[in-house]
Amino acid sequence: MLSLQDTLKIINREIQAIQYPKTPAGLYEPIAYLLTMKGKKLRPAFTLLACNLYRDDVEAAICPALAWEIFHNFTLMHDDVMDKAELRRGQPTVHKKWNENTAVLSGDAMLILSYTFMAKSLAGNIKPLLDLFSMTATEICEGQQYDMEFERRPDVSEQEYIEMIRLKTAVMFGACLRSGAIIGGANEADGQNLYDFGIYLGIAFQIKDDLLDVYGNPDVFGKETGRDILCNKKTYLLISALNSADITDKAELLKWLACNDRPEEKIVAVRSLYDKLAIPEKTDETIRIFYKKALTALQAVSVDENRKKVLKNIAEKLMEREL
Amino acid sequence: MLSLQDTLKIINREIQAIQYPKTPAGLYEPIAYLLTMKGKKLRPAFTLLACNLYRDDVEAAICPALAWEIFHNFTLMHDDVMDKAELRRGQPTVHKKWNENTAVLSGDAMLILSYTFMAKSLAGNIKPLLDLFSMTATEICEGQQYDMEFERRPDVSEQEYIEMIRLKTAVMFGACLRSGAIIGGANEADGQNLYDFGIYLGIAFQIKDDLLDVYGNPDVFGKETGRDILCNKKTYLLISALNSADITDKAELLKWLACNDRPEEKIVAVRSLYDKLAIPEKTDETIRIFYKKALTALQAVSVDENRKKVLKNIAEKLMEREL
Repeated sequence: MLSLQDTLKIINREIQAIQYPKTPAGLYEPIAYLLTMKGKKLRPAFTLLACNLYRDDVEAAICPALAWEIFHNFTLMHDDVMDKAELRRGQPTVHKKWNENTAVLSGDAMLILSYTFMAKSLAGNIKPLLDLFSMTATEICEGQQYDMEFERRPDVSEQEYIEMIRLKTAVMFGACLRSGAIIGGANEADGQNLYDFGIYLGIAFQIKDDLLDVYGNPDVFGKETGRDILCNKKTYLLISALNSADITDKAELLKWLACNDRPEEKIVAVRSLYDKLAIPEKTDETIRIFYKKALTALQAVSVDENRKKVLKNIAEKLMEREL
Repeated sequence: MLSLQDTLKIINREIQAIQYPKTPAGLYEPIAYLLTMKGKKLRPAFTLLACNLYRDDVEAAICPALAWEIFHNFTLMHDDVMDKAELRRGQPTVHKKWNENTAVLSGDAMLILSYTFMAKSLAGNIKPLLDLFSMTATEICEGQQYDMEFERRPDVSEQEYIEMIRLKTAVMFGACLRSGAIIGGANEADGQNLYDFGIYLGIAFQIKDDLLDVYGNPDVFGKETGRDILCNKKTYLLISALNSADITDKAELLKWLACNDRPEEKIVAVRSLYDKLAIPEKTDETIRIFYKKALTALQAVSVDENRKKVLKNIAEKLMEREL
């Protein structure tokens, strides 16, 4: 049985081994740049570990696992263009280091590359894997579209937000696991339960991310806190606050949303409004609900409990944010 | 046996019948907008007609044919962003009608959609079709990358230019035909010959396009002439002129390339430099060479001459530019 460390070793080795055409360098260098940055590599690990629930040899799952990692990085490359982000994992984003056209075109080549890796899976599985891949990829585009639309809408509900992060973040967790299950030869019910585990864990993970951006310890979280507050990002916390505040608190919150010139005061003020409205407690409760659903789905997977421990540990660590 | 008109009727009917999810409308409306614009629909026609060389029922080739048309339109959506083009087939481009983020994201969804259509081909063929699709899609990205790089390079050779248009334009012609041949059950040699027919025809077609942009009759060509001259586009004509001019003519040409404020004079001046350097004759000769290679490749296809007439007629019409 593979540990998370074992799978990460395989994935990092295989990513390093990807051979790109020598020319045009301007197309392929940005792909290698983004793919070889330090990252959690959680998604391809899910594929290998889900496969490993059913068979010891995960060789057949390696290319599909890489496909997910390449696809994930394609979404980062294009999302960073759309969000005008300057840094990714502490390094300049592709459109900053090169330019926007490069980020668009190398991203396109990366999406195509992800399909070539998915299609390298052993014959027999190719059709269900590709269908799952395309369905998931489409949903992720839908999630990004909703995310952009929400930034311009004052009236987003918690439910709409959760549906958005389900599409933008959670379906990839679910599909990475499900594809591993397909390759491992799991039955349909197990595939669905692993998918659900990924979905619920992905939602819990994203809301936790929103929470840590306001309340996290930067040394543990790995990022400065307050960034979402400064750019008025429609997070679970902001949406909950807007929807639960009385007229006075809402006016105060909107006043701070309109303020762009006092960053430190803004973070403190919005954070204390969140505290007053018990947003951290409410957010924690929502995370707990989805985390519990994730564990219930994992429990239903018809595999010896011992074999599921790796996935359960990952879920725990994601919640404690040691990962 | 299907005529070109028959195939276009099928393709237009099937494009109209594509069902998009209702939401998010902001993601799917731009896709439908671009796909339902008037266009030649030559690429999907190639797929159906190549299949029809080998079997009367082309049903199995319809989804792959649509995949090519969707993919082609995806490249237009993203290329228009990269080229900052304002019009496409006389209508506002997607990034003008909506915005750049929409064009990037809807384009991504369109690329994914093209894969779902290609994967809808009947099982058995799926692996070679997807491999051909991904290889071609990657080459088209490489072609676009070279095209952008050439705009900043003063020293592009005719040979480099032809390689660029092979990648950017011709491989799709070739691959559309080859995929139809695969579905029709053609042998490997026929697949290769149809691919070569498409490659050579695609190169001839693009160089003809360059020629018509300077010398065409706008009523027949369907576009104003002189647009490439005004934006200093590195066409076959400009590259040939730069490479064959003596020091005086080259200085004159470079002077006009640097001039941006006298459009009508610029067109007349560059055109007469082309005339002086016998560029139209040289270009015509190059087109003739590739057109002849295309016909030779088509001739080698082991199918009754009568069945090949539709493809031969399309090639002729493309050269006379009645298509």
